[in-house]
Amino acid sequence: MKGKMHAVFKEKPEYGAVYKEVEIPDIGEEQVLIKVESTSICGTDYHIYIWNKWAQENIKPPQIMGHEVAGEVVEVGSRVEKVKKGDFVSSETHIPCGHCYQCQTGQQHICQNMKIFGVHQDGVFAEYAVLEEVDVWKNDPSIPKDFASIQEPLGNAIDTILPGNVAGKDVLITGAGPVGLISVAVARAFGATNILVSEPNEYRRKLSLEMGADHVINPIETNLLTAVDDIFGEKGVDFTAEMSGHPDAIRDGIKAVTGGGIVSLLGLPDDKVKLDLTNDIIFKNIKVVGVTGRKMFSTWHIASNLVKGERIDLSPVITHEFPLKDFEKGMKLMEEGNCGKIILKP
Amino acid sequence: MKGKMHAVFKEKPEYGAVYKEVEIPDIGEEQVLIKVESTSICGTDYHIYIWNKWAQENIKPPQIMGHEVAGEVVEVGSRVEKVKKGDFVSSETHIPCGHCYQCQTGQQHICQNMKIFGVHQDGVFAEYAVLEEVDVWKNDPSIPKDFASIQEPLGNAIDTILPGNVAGKDVLITGAGPVGLISVAVARAFGATNILVSEPNEYRRKLSLEMGADHVINPIETNLLTAVDDIFGEKGVDFTAEMSGHPDAIRDGIKAVTGGGIVSLLGLPDDKVKLDLTNDIIFKNIKVVGVTGRKMFSTWHIASNLVKGERIDLSPVITHEFPLKDFEKGMKLMEEGNCGKIILKP
Amino acid sequence: MKGKMHAVFKEKPEYGAVYKEVEIPDIGEEQVLIKVESTSICGTDYHIYIWNKWAQENIKPPQIMGHEVAGEVVEVGSRVEKVKKGDFVSSETHIPCGHCYQCQTGQQHICQNMKIFGVHQDGVFAEYAVLEEVDVWKNDPSIPKDFASIQEPLGNAIDTILPGNVAGKDVLITGAGPVGLISVAVARAFGATNILVSEPNEYRRKLSLEMGADHVINPIETNLLTAVDDIFGEKGVDFTAEMSGHPDAIRDGIKAVTGGGIVSLLGLPDDKVKLDLTNDIIFKNIKVVGVTGRKMFSTWHIASNLVKGERIDLSPVITHEFPLKDFEKGMKLMEEGNCGKIILKP
Amino acid sequence: MKGKMHAVFKEKPEYGAVYKEVEIPDIGEEQVLIKVESTSICGTDYHIYIWNKWAQENIKPPQIMGHEVAGEVVEVGSRVEKVKKGDFVSSETHIPCGHCYQCQTGQQHICQNMKIFGVHQDGVFAEYAVLEEVDVWKNDPSIPKDFASIQEPLGNAIDTILPGNVAGKDVLITGAGPVGLISVAVARAFGATNILVSEPNEYRRKLSLEMGADHVINPIETNLLTAVDDIFGEKGVDFTAEMSGHPDAIRDGIKAVTGGGIVSLLGLPDDKVKLDLTNDIIFKNIKVVGVTGRKMFSTWHIASNLVKGERIDLSPVITHEFPLKDFEKGMKLMEEGNCGKIILKP
Repeated sequence: MKGKMHAVFKEKPEYGAVYKEVEIPDIGEEQVLIKVESTSICGTDYHIYIWNKWAQENIKPPQIMGHEVAGEVVEVGSRVEKVKKGDFVSSETHIPCGHCYQCQTGQQHICQNMKIFGVHQDGVFAEYAVLEEVDVWKNDPSIPKDFASIQEPLGNAIDTILPGNVAGKDVLITGAGPVGLISVAVARAFGATNILVSEPNEYRRKLSLEMGADHVINPIETNLLTAVDDIFGEKGVDFTAEMSGHPDAIRDGIKAVTGGGIVSLLGLPDDKVKLDLTNDIIFKNIKVVGVTGRKMFSTWHIASNLVKGERIDLSPVITHEFPLKDFEKGMKLMEEGNCGKIILKP
Repeated sequence: MKGKMHAVFKEKPEYGAVYKEVEIPDIGEEQVLIKVESTSICGTDYHIYIWNKWAQENIKPPQIMGHEVAGEVVEVGSRVEKVKKGDFVSSETHIPCGHCYQCQTGQQHICQNMKIFGVHQDGVFAEYAVLEEVDVWKNDPSIPKDFASIQEPLGNAIDTILPGNVAGKDVLITGAGPVGLISVAVARAFGATNILVSEPNEYRRKLSLEMGADHVINPIETNLLTAVDDIFGEKGVDFTAEMSGHPDAIRDGIKAVTGGGIVSLLGLPDDKVKLDLTNDIIFKNIKVVGVTGRKMFSTWHIASNLVKGERIDLSPVITHEFPLKDFEKGMKLMEEGNCGKIILKP
Repeated sequence: MKGKMHAVFKEKPEYGAVYKEVEIPDIGEEQVLIKVESTSICGTDYHIYIWNKWAQENIKPPQIMGHEVAGEVVEVGSRVEKVKKGDFVSSETHIPCGHCYQCQTGQQHICQNMKIFGVHQDGVFAEYAVLEEVDVWKNDPSIPKDFASIQEPLGNAIDTILPGNVAGKDVLITGAGPVGLISVAVARAFGATNILVSEPNEYRRKLSLEMGADHVINPIETNLLTAVDDIFGEKGVDFTAEMSGHPDAIRDGIKAVTGGGIVSLLGLPDDKVKLDLTNDIIFKNIKVVGVTGRKMFSTWHIASNLVKGERIDLSPVITHEFPLKDFEKGMKLMEEGNCGKIILKP
Repeated sequence: MKGKMHAVFKEKPEYGAVYKEVEIPDIGEEQVLIKVESTSICGTDYHIYIWNKWAQENIKPPQIMGHEVAGEVVEVGSRVEKVKKGDFVSSETHIPCGHCYQCQTGQQHICQNMKIFGVHQDGVFAEYAVLEEVDVWKNDPSIPKDFASIQEPLGNAIDTILPGNVAGKDVLITGAGPVGLISVAVARAFGATNILVSEPNEYRRKLSLEMGADHVINPIETNLLTAVDDIFGEKGVDFTAEMSGHPDAIRDGIKAVTGGGIVSLLGLPDDKVKLDLTNDIIFKNIKVVGVTGRKMFSTWHIASNLVKGERIDLSPVITHEFPLKDFEKGMKLMEEGNCGKIILKP
């Protein structure tokens, strides 16, 4: 497809981005072109925008930003079999090599030669976007377009909560950023019977309750372990989902878990973290699981079933929507933290 | 405690039972006496009442019937540590030996020398009842007494659904008797995203919808596999919970499952069942899990959390309540099938 | 590559096969051509040879037979990335579609649209053979060529034994055909501490002992359940690997398992099998797992590690070797049963 | 039983212990008295002997030391059902309360109110010893007495290796103290196909090879991660069993694991350990499992089966034997590190 489109462009290796007109990109044999109908801001996008240390090491401008997306297929490469013109699709953002040990054993989501969509190649903050066939996910037409776009972070939440076997269990979630908030709904949908959320931001504590938390605390004002003791008794929780990356949350999240319990770590600490392995992990016989990405595609099936079957309501977590050209309003909100997911509409 | 009490008595090896006055029983060192506050009828009780083949082989009258119960502890044996006078309790019904391979490896629920409460010794259809300390479960005082009594079949439902990893999955439940009905709520609470119930009785199909089923069919009028195909497509369901014991339901329930899927069998077929192992189990790489009892006591923790946390509503499944002396009205309803759980109140 | 080659040809829909000269086949973009260095006879090949009911329904002659293979890559299709000319390779025999639910969730081995190599397309009983890139497995050059060829049935044995968690456990293997024999070595390698093999053929009972069985019985002369009781006591075995497809072996194999135990079914019964689900599966809370194929490619990694690390010795199971042109001698041995794996050398 | 016996006594809260005559202890209703036939030194005993920080906080002298044991039952309490006079027994060393959440859910080994035999009450470095019925393990009479005594640390090794699913996998073991050495044999028995041991002590590196290691390195001379790269390639190992408690071994052991892999931690670091959670655990989607004690009694069944079935040979790890009165020779060897397990014979 030939023509021009608007896109949010990371033009230079520095703070910020620009909204400008560029060529609609060509597709390869195993790619598809979509008309973007909904896209959403991820923490990664914000990091690229503010040009933090991680971005400086991983991003090579100029590049179109964004990776959470839903849209309509308008062109398919000659070898594409999975979808056809007119299909309503979303996209996985991990592009696996297909040949490493992980790819050959059903773990493409942790491919040794992983490329990330919107990080290592052009993304979706644009009117049109190129997707890899291997990543395309065909949506049920009944799903609202904004929910379709945030199935990607929903997948993170699912893979964080699933290892916890939360059905009938006591759960702590540390950190209620957008993925943390979605995790509350996922834990609830999967049968967690008592959910405590620890989050310093008041706006997000309120959202946590809307997403299904039974209790919220501000860990700056209330000692988390005391709160756990008050709510769950000496036993503690069966499972902690750590979504903040904060070292104290990680440590207390591990301490809060009862002997034989499970901790999922999704939040990314900036630095190394000191842990009392002997008392908190070894003597307690607990399991700590690192979580990244979404399983391709068992997680997507679950995500799509939850949305299609209306087992979780993602409405409360979508707190703002802007036209794509106003993306900077979204970035500002991300900085302040008084938001859930922010939708950008081309 | 000395005195008289009323009880439903299986007096003779024949159809029926009598309501009569007997002595309040004595307790041993590791037993407790409870004042029965709520008790409920199980299929087993009905089989003992009608004196079917299984009952004839397993029951030795005279004996007090019943095993699902909630009540208040009024006397404790000298070695009892778990509960004290005044505690609100329910009871597991499997009495494990404590020394066999299963008991020594965390599987007391399938003890090789199992005795069943209400089957091999006096039960709870009475004003007072003797419980074994090993079986006593201390309830949260906030739980409604009738819900407390049916935590025992709720445990069966939990152990049937848990092996299915139903979070985000398509589920078929064949048979909506009381435990089948509770399983619908459990599957729903654990995140099943599309639930089909197959049940010939109209009353129970309606109850299934109230318990959270997305679809119901009458397998006598509608071919189950066609219905599965219509609702779930060629893939079929991820998991079947077989709660009827009917050979056709077992066979179709297995056929309905997608490759790599799981089947739980809880319903007890009267006779041997012919299965197409090659095509339905082996080539499809599926797992069939036999389910009995409730894990002691991890299942009880889950059951109690679900009830206490109000994650499942058991109200719709409690369809009738009678004074204990009118137990025959309950047995009649069991025969007709137009009921869920029936509560008997001493 | 142009030229002629010899091959074992299923020419007509009737008993038998012919050894004749044909064109060396062309390869497609995602295929490779190999010079066959070792190939082995599977039960499936024998069924095609004798033209049994299954063969009549599934095979469309004319076609080159055979699917277990090791050889050297001599030509690669233009899109092939996994291997290059000169590589020493084997081949998975399941050709998955890549797009169905199973393929998209890491279960290509039970693809809904599966094609089987040597069944639905030309096989490897020839001097040269065409492999699909998706199926090619690159061998370590140190592995003996005949062992490389039988990694495929070794994979079946691995996937049968793995679900049994046999480390430190009591194991029953019913049926000591070639895959059953390999399973004995696998169970032993994976830590099974007491292995009983039940097999009517004396030759194969002797081989079972060479492969690592602790006990063998002839189920025609000795009651299997009595033998289990004598060897393992009342508890029974922890795990049964059913490799015969015989209905009595299936029933007794299930009965032999202790409460909470596991049964893998790999042997394919010809007809439906009557099972006492109530007493043998449900009340015992056991798990029955249907096994087919080999996981792509986690099973191949394990198979190759076992062979490369010399953790299992496949020598005893390779009982015969013939030049390819004498394939009928192999088929005759298969009929008589006095053999393990039979190697054919082009 | 009345009379005198000799015992190794921790008499005062200071370095050392004494060998002296004391009364043969009385037993309670749920205890048994054994004549000690073999006992072995654990690291814990050494810590009590040298009176390290942990000992100062946990031990209240005077007390008989020791907890690994095998012997003959000479007297049983009135309520004991598990064993009788004359039985050959060993003992679990964790004494669970029986009533906490863990005890009620099949996890007595991590009881919240745990007492440790030989730590919180008199132990087995004596001619006679009192065991708790809940802890007694009845041995097969065929097992050598010294092997029977070290089934307890064998159990630690089993619970460390089991979570690794090592069948057909690449394994790293960091630390070849006595339990590390036994772990090598266990990993081998459970099917690990390539085992690297990292251990600074030359004597123990040699023993590692005798126990079944494929490779050994001295991490002080050779960079562990370079060695892993050389032996296992870029993929790394599938599983690390950390048995040293050394912070560098923990960090490198985690880094050595491939994406999706597993790490068991058994070694107890003295201080908190800094970990790069983001890169080493989260992005790699690995699982870290803290291991303590032995599952009661599924682990004991496995341990006993391995010994009885001669699937592991514990001979190489038993490097020294002394009369009980010479226990100080053993403690000296423990200090130097040039030993495996040390047996003390009363």
